[in-house]
Amino acid sequence: MTLATSSACGEFSPPPRLLLGPGPSLVHPRVLQAMGRPLLGHLDPEFLQLMNEIQAMLRHVFRTENRFTIALSGTGSAGMEALLVNLVEPGETVLVGVNGVFGARMAAVVERCGGRPITIEAPWGRIVEPDAIRLALARSGPVKAVALVHAETSTGARQPLEAIGALCREAGALFIVDAVTSLAGLPLEVDAWGIDACYSGTQKCLSCPPGLSPLTLNDHALTAIRRRKTACRSWYLDLSLVADYWEEGKRAYHHTAPISMLYALREALRLVEEEGLESRFARHRLQSEALGAGLEALGLSPFAQEGYRLPSLACVTLPARIDDAAVRASLLRRFQIEIGGGLGPLRGQVWRIGLMGESARRCHVLTLLSALEELGLDQGWLAQPGAALTAAAGVYARPGEPGAMPQKSARMSSEREKACS
Amino acid sequence: MTLATSSACGEFSPPPRLLLGPGPSLVHPRVLQAMGRPLLGHLDPEFLQLMNEIQAMLRHVFRTENRFTIALSGTGSAGMEALLVNLVEPGETVLVGVNGVFGARMAAVVERCGGRPITIEAPWGRIVEPDAIRLALARSGPVKAVALVHAETSTGARQPLEAIGALCREAGALFIVDAVTSLAGLPLEVDAWGIDACYSGTQKCLSCPPGLSPLTLNDHALTAIRRRKTACRSWYLDLSLVADYWEEGKRAYHHTAPISMLYALREALRLVEEEGLESRFARHRLQSEALGAGLEALGLSPFAQEGYRLPSLACVTLPARIDDAAVRASLLRRFQIEIGGGLGPLRGQVWRIGLMGESARRCHVLTLLSALEELGLDQGWLAQPGAALTAAAGVYARPGEPGAMPQKSARMSSEREKACS
Repeated sequence: MTLATSSACGEFSPPPRLLLGPGPSLVHPRVLQAMGRPLLGHLDPEFLQLMNEIQAMLRHVFRTENRFTIALSGTGSAGMEALLVNLVEPGETVLVGVNGVFGARMAAVVERCGGRPITIEAPWGRIVEPDAIRLALARSGPVKAVALVHAETSTGARQPLEAIGALCREAGALFIVDAVTSLAGLPLEVDAWGIDACYSGTQKCLSCPPGLSPLTLNDHALTAIRRRKTACRSWYLDLSLVADYWEEGKRAYHHTAPISMLYALREALRLVEEEGLESRFARHRLQSEALGAGLEALGLSPFAQEGYRLPSLACVTLPARIDDAAVRASLLRRFQIEIGGGLGPLRGQVWRIGLMGESARRCHVLTLLSALEELGLDQGWLAQPGAALTAAAGVYARPGEPGAMPQKSARMSSEREKACS
Repeated sequence: MTLATSSACGEFSPPPRLLLGPGPSLVHPRVLQAMGRPLLGHLDPEFLQLMNEIQAMLRHVFRTENRFTIALSGTGSAGMEALLVNLVEPGETVLVGVNGVFGARMAAVVERCGGRPITIEAPWGRIVEPDAIRLALARSGPVKAVALVHAETSTGARQPLEAIGALCREAGALFIVDAVTSLAGLPLEVDAWGIDACYSGTQKCLSCPPGLSPLTLNDHALTAIRRRKTACRSWYLDLSLVADYWEEGKRAYHHTAPISMLYALREALRLVEEEGLESRFARHRLQSEALGAGLEALGLSPFAQEGYRLPSLACVTLPARIDDAAVRASLLRRFQIEIGGGLGPLRGQVWRIGLMGESARRCHVLTLLSALEELGLDQGWLAQPGAALTAAAGVYARPGEPGAMPQKSARMSSEREKACS
């Protein structure tokens, strides 16, 4: 037997990147360190204790008392599929708000589960009006669930959710929410808003590497799972089996948990707790306003509907004079900055600039605006430097803004600390 | 709005553990370091290059030319479900060899996919005889696939696969193999054995943290996916969509890849290449023989059928005088050593001791045997120390054994190097 080796490759050392795309966001050094710690077994008492701590901290960021609050072993899209494949039985109707890629994805997943999606469409960038949902509920016959995307990562729109829970309860429908780009970046109130099941991802406002999907289900949702007439179509994502592993006192082996990712999530959640949710939301809001002012000064205006724009993701329309591909390539090559392009029909039309978690800091906003100004001068779509930075500075200088002071926790290395508040 | 924090928890520092259970195995410091590197975006050109390198190295360990060779974003069980949900359409028959937990899991997953599993049962610990497979193929009418577990982690049995590919081809059935506990630890020849689709996990003989499932499909398997009459029931695991992301030249966004886990896998695969597959297999074999001799001296005899025992996992029967729970608890508490108990009907009857990847080293075998001897004296089920260590020493001292010399690569920190060959 001769087992030839493939061509050898050297040690991998990722080039520095300022991650300002739609995720992954920058990861705090403490989280990177946590991920590099030696492994424990997935049934080790010390690891089970860590799972308990993660569950407690996730309940806090989801703003819920739900006992069933866990981190699923897959990315945010696995969380989407897990909720739908567990809560929807073949033939059941789900109303899905579709105003971008991720609403459309939810509808596709409902179909794969054998469910019947009825979409409530809105133009990309606009919200799905609560009245449209009310109307659809009235017209649709029995509805198993209403599914909405809180933060539509393809358009930058923030879906209002406060009034939907009551509509769902009245209709006897479960309320399912995609909080992938909102959790820990903007207010989300799982219990107060009557959300029955909610999922997120780790690589957005939690600033943890991708690979886990935090999710939470209340008793209504768990009852729906218990009362299923058919087995869940997925074994890997079957939450009744997954629950037997996460439930304290049970801890029955289902699959080997991604140990290192859970180390990372615990540390990311600790950083969130140290900062406090309110301060964290305020930081996201301030940085997004500063970025927005700067982009506006460059002629890039927000794509999403006014009053419903995400602080965690700026989606801006490109004026014709700006060449999407040329600028993004130069940003990456010359400045090591990643921002996102448009998805689907918005390809070439918009940029998606994420300010999530560790990426939502003044130093990063200023660096991006400065780089864009420089590229604009070079590429001939800008006449004078300074306007974008000046506009951002105006936001930072507003009286009473917390951004003027460094955050008291979630510290960067000391030399970056002052600039990166 | 007041967002109270949950009770704070401190920095997590995992206690040291010698991982000798059925996985996760010990992870090399270079792999831990790789995982802690800063993130790249999942569409960054440098990251796409890393994906290419992983694919090339995975082809090498799978011993295949299959273009479609990737690391799926989920653990080994997700890999199992991905192959079955893509290759099996509702109503189709799959012959599944069942001689332990993981064969039974495959049958359950076939059922969740809407397929019709026909199980070929063998007593736990014994192999599924090729003749039984031949017979089942002859009797079962049209069969979409035959699914076998190469290394049954619940019993320590190694399923012979060499003759099965030809039987499947004759019958027009696909040949699907679970190589979770075999890949990179014992010979596996995807192309030469006519395996059409094969999956594994990272936390076993690859010695990478859990969270990814390497898998490979040949053209027969891909054609079966292309010719499906129904959509794959899973969106997250739909390999035709996943392929659009992994395929060079396409790289279409499907879900955000688990970046850090892929850094880790690349480094783990580099360590495999540096050592060489043949040396790695020889190391696993030698260490398992030394362990087996030592355990036998303690009265623990192998559970699996002679001639078909895994080098990567020793499953041994407990004599009545040994208290399973008491010994495993003491191993963990006093010696920081994790070994595995029995699953299902074997609970309390067997131990499962993994020697996988970095765990398969002389220092670890000797440490475990020494700890067991000490506990045996303390707990009164052993009269004299030394027999187990002596038996292991006899194996190491056999003329011509590679174990007498430190491995030339995959180095541990220098002070451990000599002991840990």
